[in-house]
Amino acid sequence: MPDPGPSPQRPGPTAAPARFGAPSLADALAPVTGTAEAAAVGGRVLPTRPVRPFGTAPVPEAAAPAPAHEPAPAGPAHSAAALERILRGPAGLGTVSLHWARTEEPPAAPEPAAPAASRPIPGLYHHPVAEPDPVRVEELGRRIKAWAVDEVRAFPPEWEDQFDGFSVSRYMVACHPDAPTLDHLMLAARLMVAENVVDDAYCEDGATSPDVGGRLLLAHTALDPVHTTGEYQPAWEESLSSDAARRSYRSAMEYFTGAATPAQADRFRHDMARLHLGYLAEAAWDATEYVPEVWEYLAMRQFNNFRPCPTITDTVGGYELPAELHALPAMQRVIALAGNATTLSNDLYSYMKELKSPGKHLNLPVVIAEKEGLSDKEAYLKAVEVHNDLMHAFEAESAALAAACPDPRAARFLKGVAAWVDGNHYWHASNTYRYTLPDFW
Amino acid sequence: MPDPGPSPQRPGPTAAPARFGAPSLADALAPVTGTAEAAAVGGRVLPTRPVRPFGTAPVPEAAAPAPAHEPAPAGPAHSAAALERILRGPAGLGTVSLHWARTEEPPAAPEPAAPAASRPIPGLYHHPVAEPDPVRVEELGRRIKAWAVDEVRAFPPEWEDQFDGFSVSRYMVACHPDAPTLDHLMLAARLMVAENVVDDAYCEDGATSPDVGGRLLLAHTALDPVHTTGEYQPAWEESLSSDAARRSYRSAMEYFTGAATPAQADRFRHDMARLHLGYLAEAAWDATEYVPEVWEYLAMRQFNNFRPCPTITDTVGGYELPAELHALPAMQRVIALAGNATTLSNDLYSYMKELKSPGKHLNLPVVIAEKEGLSDKEAYLKAVEVHNDLMHAFEAESAALAAACPDPRAARFLKGVAAWVDGNHYWHASNTYRYTLPDFW
Repeated sequence: MPDPGPSPQRPGPTAAPARFGAPSLADALAPVTGTAEAAAVGGRVLPTRPVRPFGTAPVPEAAAPAPAHEPAPAGPAHSAAALERILRGPAGLGTVSLHWARTEEPPAAPEPAAPAASRPIPGLYHHPVAEPDPVRVEELGRRIKAWAVDEVRAFPPEWEDQFDGFSVSRYMVACHPDAPTLDHLMLAARLMVAENVVDDAYCEDGATSPDVGGRLLLAHTALDPVHTTGEYQPAWEESLSSDAARRSYRSAMEYFTGAATPAQADRFRHDMARLHLGYLAEAAWDATEYVPEVWEYLAMRQFNNFRPCPTITDTVGGYELPAELHALPAMQRVIALAGNATTLSNDLYSYMKELKSPGKHLNLPVVIAEKEGLSDKEAYLKAVEVHNDLMHAFEAESAALAAACPDPRAARFLKGVAAWVDGNHYWHASNTYRYTLPDFW
Repeated sequence: MPDPGPSPQRPGPTAAPARFGAPSLADALAPVTGTAEAAAVGGRVLPTRPVRPFGTAPVPEAAAPAPAHEPAPAGPAHSAAALERILRGPAGLGTVSLHWARTEEPPAAPEPAAPAASRPIPGLYHHPVAEPDPVRVEELGRRIKAWAVDEVRAFPPEWEDQFDGFSVSRYMVACHPDAPTLDHLMLAARLMVAENVVDDAYCEDGATSPDVGGRLLLAHTALDPVHTTGEYQPAWEESLSSDAARRSYRSAMEYFTGAATPAQADRFRHDMARLHLGYLAEAAWDATEYVPEVWEYLAMRQFNNFRPCPTITDTVGGYELPAELHALPAMQRVIALAGNATTLSNDLYSYMKELKSPGKHLNLPVVIAEKEGLSDKEAYLKAVEVHNDLMHAFEAESAALAAACPDPRAARFLKGVAAWVDGNHYWHASNTYRYTLPDFW
């Protein structure tokens, strides 16, 4: 998984690039025992707050009552504007056909992200998005922090400010503009946090550790459960609360399966298996100091990829893309292209940060420079073009598939993937303290 | 993947335990270039014999014309007997409800495997199966060898006798008694051969190689294709013909996707991602000389598992278990239990062989002995009980699911999984030269 990480806790020109899950956090992720969470039933730790059974109602029906802790909206005009913005979907060049709801009137121009907070990479093909609803961002932030701190203890209390800097609520609200309720957004936010905890704890700081294969498989069982005998099942179940990574995966997945259909959960498990294979390939190359060919790097990056995030867009949106439509080769290709484009965008935004990190951190510009004998600047600009080509291919093939597939759920899913790509770009571009850009223009 | 391997080429009390894919075979799997296969179109290697579009017709309709090269049946009586045997399905204690087709008359007792060729582990809960149709075995053997030798060059010509000893045709005919045609059986046989080639080339002889993570991911792209730009796509496509492992995966998957629905292909890819995660966990433990807890070993073995084989039973049977039914938690549990039972059976049959191999080869008896302080005999007998418990759980939960799910495809699929488990046991028990048993009784 690309590591979006947080904004640094104390931003400033001289601040060291910090992130949620930096080594000191990883060190702090040791097992904690004897807490209330350990008061489990049959070795199975239950979440302290049951998931609301909001099912798969489509958006119009799901313009739902505000959650108990959500600040009351300012009034009908505010609500209507917020709903209209949510339903409007992605905006910008090339997204004319990607609106959630058509109206007789032309949609209003989106509110751009605050200029001071956004610095897109010059020449990077992308679509600006409306500024995420601040009311949702605030309440989602409160809820996801409560989950991370109180329910799964993803990090010790002294790291709460780091977690706040991660801005996961702004991220997820930007990526899921059609989520009908905060409960739906929480599904995405928990998984995003959990994926970052696992990546940080098992991969980023332990990529060359030869036991990462065993550790990741045991973490994967928090998503894809073990079925064994009565004698050995409890020890496995207990293992799921034994570190922050597994606690986070397990709880986030439990909420997710409570809302998703079995086929949606199976799809997510598959994407996570791909992600873990990608982690292990990258770890193997790191351990052997192997610099892959560009095509090999691109193949690995299709697995170590944001894909698990956009492909839950239907669950977060409160509907289901049927498994048969999801499995269509054309749909699989569109999902892969979107995942690859958005993942390479992460490579480009994190280029300077990764240059400063110890050792050689593989990313597309670095691999192109080494394997094709280009200067750093030439390689970076070529990587931008690779990204742009993938974005254009994604949009062209997505439009063709939407036109060819009469099922409205396919069209909505494709819009949701596009919205995720745009929201992910917004989040990266607005993290100007984290993602400084090279001086190539 | 458990390594079923072949019977040794020259069996005898003093013969070294040889197998298809032994180190010298792996050494021989180096890329071969400049052959007819390299005459590819646009970097894409096409099979020399196109797959027959036999679709997903159900069994009754698919009692099909004999393939062009299939020996003509002896006559109507022969055909009827063969068909009846195929439709009869698994037999033996506990399989009363697991018949393919119900008739007014009680089914005839199955032909047992030739006693001289079968030595089941004492106390191992299993069901004997009818001896595989020798006509099918012979013709499938001829075809799969032609594919392995001529189409994908899975091994050099001098290893053909070793390949013959693998007996993959007898294996697959035993595991898929409801396959309507030899073309359907070929789908399973190609994948089984390919999985063994990859395991042998990348894992069994390179488990401690730190680059196995990168190699397996690139092999996985032969099943789950890369989608990248026009500049880099051809190099990836060319890579798929660069070694025997990828040639085998790629070709077997191409035939499979030509016959399976997209959802069936997606299911298979997911199971293969699981398998590769299991390989990498086992490799990590091997590299670090880590002896896992028994529950950890069982968790790993649920991934490094036969699962990809039985879950294609519907494609090989010419029908489809719909994705929604496949994803049901109860179905996932039954599949996992069946996969775990049949995989642990492999541990038990290969115990003596693995004891003789260099280094410590993890299997369930070895892990139980070390972690629970039991003697080798006690640990082995306990492992038999673990297997039996999983078999009983599989059968009980399979029967409950079949009763609860009214869709006849679910019932047929569950019977197909049971047939695969029984056929796999038959294959192991009849490889008496390969799988000698310990003297524990």
